[in-house]
Amino acid sequence: MSDEEPAFAARVAIIGLGLIGGSIARDLAARGVSVVGHDRDPGAVHDALMSGVIEASFDESYEGAAPDVVLLAVPVTAASAVLQRYAKACRAARLVTDVGSTKGAILAAAADAGVQAQFVGSHPLTGDHRSGWTASRTGRFVGARVFLCPAEKAEATAIDLASSLWRLVGAAPELIRAEEHDALVAWSSHLPQFVVCALASTLYEAGVARSELGPGGRDTTRLAGSSPDMWTAIADENRDALTHALDGFQARLRAIQTALANHDHESIRSHLEIAREWFDGSSIPKRPVRPPAV
Amino acid sequence: MSDEEPAFAARVAIIGLGLIGGSIARDLAARGVSVVGHDRDPGAVHDALMSGVIEASFDESYEGAAPDVVLLAVPVTAASAVLQRYAKACRAARLVTDVGSTKGAILAAAADAGVQAQFVGSHPLTGDHRSGWTASRTGRFVGARVFLCPAEKAEATAIDLASSLWRLVGAAPELIRAEEHDALVAWSSHLPQFVVCALASTLYEAGVARSELGPGGRDTTRLAGSSPDMWTAIADENRDALTHALDGFQARLRAIQTALANHDHESIRSHLEIAREWFDGSSIPKRPVRPPAV
Repeated sequence: MSDEEPAFAARVAIIGLGLIGGSIARDLAARGVSVVGHDRDPGAVHDALMSGVIEASFDESYEGAAPDVVLLAVPVTAASAVLQRYAKACRAARLVTDVGSTKGAILAAAADAGVQAQFVGSHPLTGDHRSGWTASRTGRFVGARVFLCPAEKAEATAIDLASSLWRLVGAAPELIRAEEHDALVAWSSHLPQFVVCALASTLYEAGVARSELGPGGRDTTRLAGSSPDMWTAIADENRDALTHALDGFQARLRAIQTALANHDHESIRSHLEIAREWFDGSSIPKRPVRPPAV
Repeated sequence: MSDEEPAFAARVAIIGLGLIGGSIARDLAARGVSVVGHDRDPGAVHDALMSGVIEASFDESYEGAAPDVVLLAVPVTAASAVLQRYAKACRAARLVTDVGSTKGAILAAAADAGVQAQFVGSHPLTGDHRSGWTASRTGRFVGARVFLCPAEKAEATAIDLASSLWRLVGAAPELIRAEEHDALVAWSSHLPQFVVCALASTLYEAGVARSELGPGGRDTTRLAGSSPDMWTAIADENRDALTHALDGFQARLRAIQTALANHDHESIRSHLEIAREWFDGSSIPKRPVRPPAV
């Protein structure tokens, strides 16, 4: 433990020392914060202990000082069960947060586990197609947008603590209602992911290797390397919103195919021009995707 | 003109001093090659002259030494007309080449213009969403794959000269039949472009700005900034192959939507797993997309 006064006077327990949890652990430890951690992979726990990133292994047998913050950095499908398993530590904490890409289900689980007052969900927009402790690194969150979705009955101190935690690692936290968040990410994150997945499996079937693509095509398909487990879980959690977004996408694609079939150059060009305007940010989108605040 | 012996003993005329033509001009001039050039934008010609990249403006009124190489670096739809306009200079050259993304139409135009013996089409895989002389730079082609599609009656000297030209600027030229090339790029380049276009216009309609996307989504949509004119032309030139590829993509997407609708986790995961295998290059694609050699 550091002898210096830590910049963030809280002991943080991180459950899941993968790409995100491991990176947060590294950043906090580097700033003198006391971090304890757990991972279902004993190798990850061992490496995190050996490198001095975590001070102790945090599991059911843990007997150290109670953590002020519990951070769940496990796949969205596992998060609710893990929250239940650690419910006692969570109820004793000042802040319980997660890092999942959807927020509806985990907020419901927090209510079920009796940790509404402490729960502020987090979603850092720092995804990567890699995963695991070995993919974690310091500085991952510098400049990153992080959505914060407080439970309905979350206390102001929990929200402030979540905000401080993310600012400490260089991120820019932003409050948003959970239902707004889930509608937005269906378009901004889940739709691109599944479009790229369909594109990659189409190219696979066609016998075109990724190495045959130019630099633009390789950028386009980088998300194809993402974790199948993680995205199966996300798709299921946010199924209705994702289906709605995919329907919208299919309609645009059909319009382009019709224009192609009709040799309608003006229509093809106008699709491409809308795409470029959107890319340039030169036109203001027509309507907000976010549901109205209630 | 340089007093040194140029590394590539040929005078090159470049028609179209944009992203690609301007970059080749810069690379050749930097290696002491004598370059003359033309662009429909007088400002680009002026800038290329002022920066010493081209020695003279090359147009119908040009009275300097005849170029050994004529390089057409204009949009695919314009290339055939430009080839006709410069047919005399092309017939006197040892090599006539282009840089277009499709090859069938330009090879037909070369035959019509009587420059089959000199014509070797080129397609450098170095696209960029930017365009114009101001986007040109030296070193653009280092390590880039360049497809070479010789006319049916192209002479070996023309093929050798095309190969030397691309090697001189650091690229890796590769011979391929035109019909094979056009089938391949429908999948490897045109399909990703139009998928990204449909995705961008879907997000535009949904009111989600590009700045709301995470790093993965921004990579995915970089091609949305591409030139609408260029891609309208390419789509029309390679319409049948592109339509076929889009049909294949739509089928994969429908399969994913069905899996989502049915809560079929195993099927969703298997789509994501195929995508990741393709990304990793760990599985050999099932069949070659290229038509059989004739």
